[in-house]
Amino acid sequence: MNYSVIRYILFRVLEFAALFMALPFLVGLAYGENSAFCFLYVMAGCLAVSLVGRRFKPKTQVFYAREGFVTVSLSWILLSMVGALPFYLSGEFPAYTDALFETISGLTTTGATILADVEGLSRCIQFWRCFTHWIGGMGVLVLILAVLPLSGSYNMHLMRAESPGPSVGKLVPKIKNTAMILYGIYLAITLIEIMALMFAGLNLYEAATLTFSTVGTGGFGLLNSSIGSYPAGVQTIFTIFMMLCGINFQIFYLLLIKKPKEALASEELRYYLGIALGAAILIALNVRGSFASGREAFHHSMFQVASVMTTTGFATLDYNVWPEFSRAVLFLLTLLGACAGSTGGGFKVSRLIVLLRSVKNEIFSVVHPRSIKKLHMDGRIVEDSVIKSIQVYTMIYVMIFLGSFVLLSLNEFDFLTNISAVAATFNNVGPGFNMVGSAGNYSAFSVFSKLVLMFDMLAGRLELIPMMVLLSPRTWRR
Amino acid sequence: MNYSVIRYILFRVLEFAALFMALPFLVGLAYGENSAFCFLYVMAGCLAVSLVGRRFKPKTQVFYAREGFVTVSLSWILLSMVGALPFYLSGEFPAYTDALFETISGLTTTGATILADVEGLSRCIQFWRCFTHWIGGMGVLVLILAVLPLSGSYNMHLMRAESPGPSVGKLVPKIKNTAMILYGIYLAITLIEIMALMFAGLNLYEAATLTFSTVGTGGFGLLNSSIGSYPAGVQTIFTIFMMLCGINFQIFYLLLIKKPKEALASEELRYYLGIALGAAILIALNVRGSFASGREAFHHSMFQVASVMTTTGFATLDYNVWPEFSRAVLFLLTLLGACAGSTGGGFKVSRLIVLLRSVKNEIFSVVHPRSIKKLHMDGRIVEDSVIKSIQVYTMIYVMIFLGSFVLLSLNEFDFLTNISAVAATFNNVGPGFNMVGSAGNYSAFSVFSKLVLMFDMLAGRLELIPMMVLLSPRTWRR
Repeated sequence: MNYSVIRYILFRVLEFAALFMALPFLVGLAYGENSAFCFLYVMAGCLAVSLVGRRFKPKTQVFYAREGFVTVSLSWILLSMVGALPFYLSGEFPAYTDALFETISGLTTTGATILADVEGLSRCIQFWRCFTHWIGGMGVLVLILAVLPLSGSYNMHLMRAESPGPSVGKLVPKIKNTAMILYGIYLAITLIEIMALMFAGLNLYEAATLTFSTVGTGGFGLLNSSIGSYPAGVQTIFTIFMMLCGINFQIFYLLLIKKPKEALASEELRYYLGIALGAAILIALNVRGSFASGREAFHHSMFQVASVMTTTGFATLDYNVWPEFSRAVLFLLTLLGACAGSTGGGFKVSRLIVLLRSVKNEIFSVVHPRSIKKLHMDGRIVEDSVIKSIQVYTMIYVMIFLGSFVLLSLNEFDFLTNISAVAATFNNVGPGFNMVGSAGNYSAFSVFSKLVLMFDMLAGRLELIPMMVLLSPRTWRR
Repeated sequence: MNYSVIRYILFRVLEFAALFMALPFLVGLAYGENSAFCFLYVMAGCLAVSLVGRRFKPKTQVFYAREGFVTVSLSWILLSMVGALPFYLSGEFPAYTDALFETISGLTTTGATILADVEGLSRCIQFWRCFTHWIGGMGVLVLILAVLPLSGSYNMHLMRAESPGPSVGKLVPKIKNTAMILYGIYLAITLIEIMALMFAGLNLYEAATLTFSTVGTGGFGLLNSSIGSYPAGVQTIFTIFMMLCGINFQIFYLLLIKKPKEALASEELRYYLGIALGAAILIALNVRGSFASGREAFHHSMFQVASVMTTTGFATLDYNVWPEFSRAVLFLLTLLGACAGSTGGGFKVSRLIVLLRSVKNEIFSVVHPRSIKKLHMDGRIVEDSVIKSIQVYTMIYVMIFLGSFVLLSLNEFDFLTNISAVAATFNNVGPGFNMVGSAGNYSAFSVFSKLVLMFDMLAGRLELIPMMVLLSPRTWRR
């Protein structure tokens, strides 16, 4: 294990953490809030430590997949621990565990909160909550790759370990340029949504914070009613941008370089939109009776479907009280999630497509044992190694899911609370059902349960393997 | 598709159905019950039809895996439809769908009932309910293989399609002899349990019917309280025989031919016993407070664990009211099930072992990409094709599970009722939680939901592939 490089990158993460906190500090200053200085202290601490760290340079450039996974896991854990400090120092969170839960929830774009009342928070703290979604949405290491003059084998291994989806989409030959393009698109969508929301009547503060929560597909809001008290037009803007950020960013790149045919040929995109629309229609029919018009029913069902499927977690109403069929559909969407290469979490639509096709092929091979069928997606053959990695991913997914569920049930809350808390954190959605429904929160869980859920959020965001590698004793053997 | 052979075997299934019904008919005669004649009518019908069928001989001996899967699926469906007739004709079941549900539940050794009151049934009907467990436990086709003079490629394909577990355990080179040995062991265990129960004070009728339910790991009982009103000693006999019948029958064969070392070296056996004991201890600690002594708590927790893990479904009390942690552990055991090659259902312990090891290997290969690790079980290398088939099995398992759950949620019963109803039928356990808990039943579900659950029971018992092949349009293309 090349410890010197890992240490080097972790010190850079601290510098970025300080950089990120400049924004909430300024917001706090502008509103004249005392909590602002918490950010200043933490920034000073980060910079002091990283200044000491400047003296340690990487001894060798050897950097393999193992180092990549370990670096990414440790970077996220470090950033979470540091990011939780302002929450804790401000005194607005009951304990450091809770502050850490909230930060991990923010960075992993989960949006699960331990707060019953978010309206009582100071503005700079609210801003930081939402801004962690933006930081985590596209990834910390991707940003470091885009900015820092790292070279060689680092890049691919870090990118692979942090990016969501079964295979890494290199847009251009150089990873560094890919990272810059991704962040450019991300920034552009952010600015467009802020303008759209301000155009719809929100002030800059509201527009910016809620945009961070949308484009990062996070879900932290400013009001206890989430998005419920905004006008229908504003809600529709959120629906649109949530759906946009659940799309593979490669699609936007293809559109930018004027290859719309290739962009729209994406099978994952078609399935993603098809499933979302289908689910929204089914739910709209199911809840039709509780609304004045079919249009209103569809408005709310589409919002909730977009919110859950893109793993954002906003809500326009308490969908926990919806009929069982609608809840079951939303539960499945919680597990499924958005597209690979998006800011959304979950199992990912592309994995589902490959799985469905591989199962179909297997049944075919039982019936016709001598014929060999290759699995296609987007007109290309899917390599056996990718199929295998997706199948293994599914195994680990199911095991972590069921294991976390049993550990959570030690709390003696009801079955659906436990299973949906795991589903909602592991897939980075945020709200689940019953006690952790969109009108509830995670505060009642024990510290042990919160640690389990924090692990689930990180494991889900980093797509299982980095955290498994970090925890595997074999990684640390010489 | 070789239709003539399939037809030939289906006619033989009818003859066996008639043969099986002779027993409940005699029981009914002995107790002087009118319902006995329902069996006589159906027997006469079966024999008449199969007499006509005698004229059709198989045109060709061509018989591949496809024919094997289709034959097994159709045989089970036919036997269920015929087996439901006495229930329906007796008038003791509200509708033919319900009679069919009960028969499929019986043959697949599920033990899920649509009856609120089983004590009101006539004795011959009760006998037939329990006897279907015994018929389905070891498999109908295995019996046909053991008895009928079939030859050639039939045997292997039928055996493979009907036997539980990731790979078929041929005990001896000839399939026919393997089938005979399996049925011999099955019969011996049956007789021993009947004697044990009679020795403990039960009469022949009680002992025989409850033995059928135990050794088939079915779970239909004679009383509404299941096994709750029997003395603790009798309950322990059930615990022992349930655990025995969840073991791979290959182990008993190895013991019979005096190879105890090989038998006890089975990793699946060790995991099976270890998991059962571990779960029983955890649950006993969790429910300790509700019992007078730790010994009593363990007695009941061990019974329930054995009942759920072997997918029998007996109960000594209403474990639905147990604390959430105990219910969560039992829920996971519902999914897991017993050993391959046993009469129990579920995912199977051996599949879990292979999955856990393959995941461990995959994480290892991320850390050390150039090393190749082979997966071992019982000291032998597990073929890649077996690992792959288990992974595909898991995919299909998860998909059918989630799909059935959504369809069931159309009923508007609660989440846990729906998900545990699917888990309990798909894994052939029987009772789930809440409405379908050990004190509840399946009568309130709609006809559509019952059809979904019937499919799940058959798919679970036949281990997914046969039903998937039957339903795949590709099977029927020329």
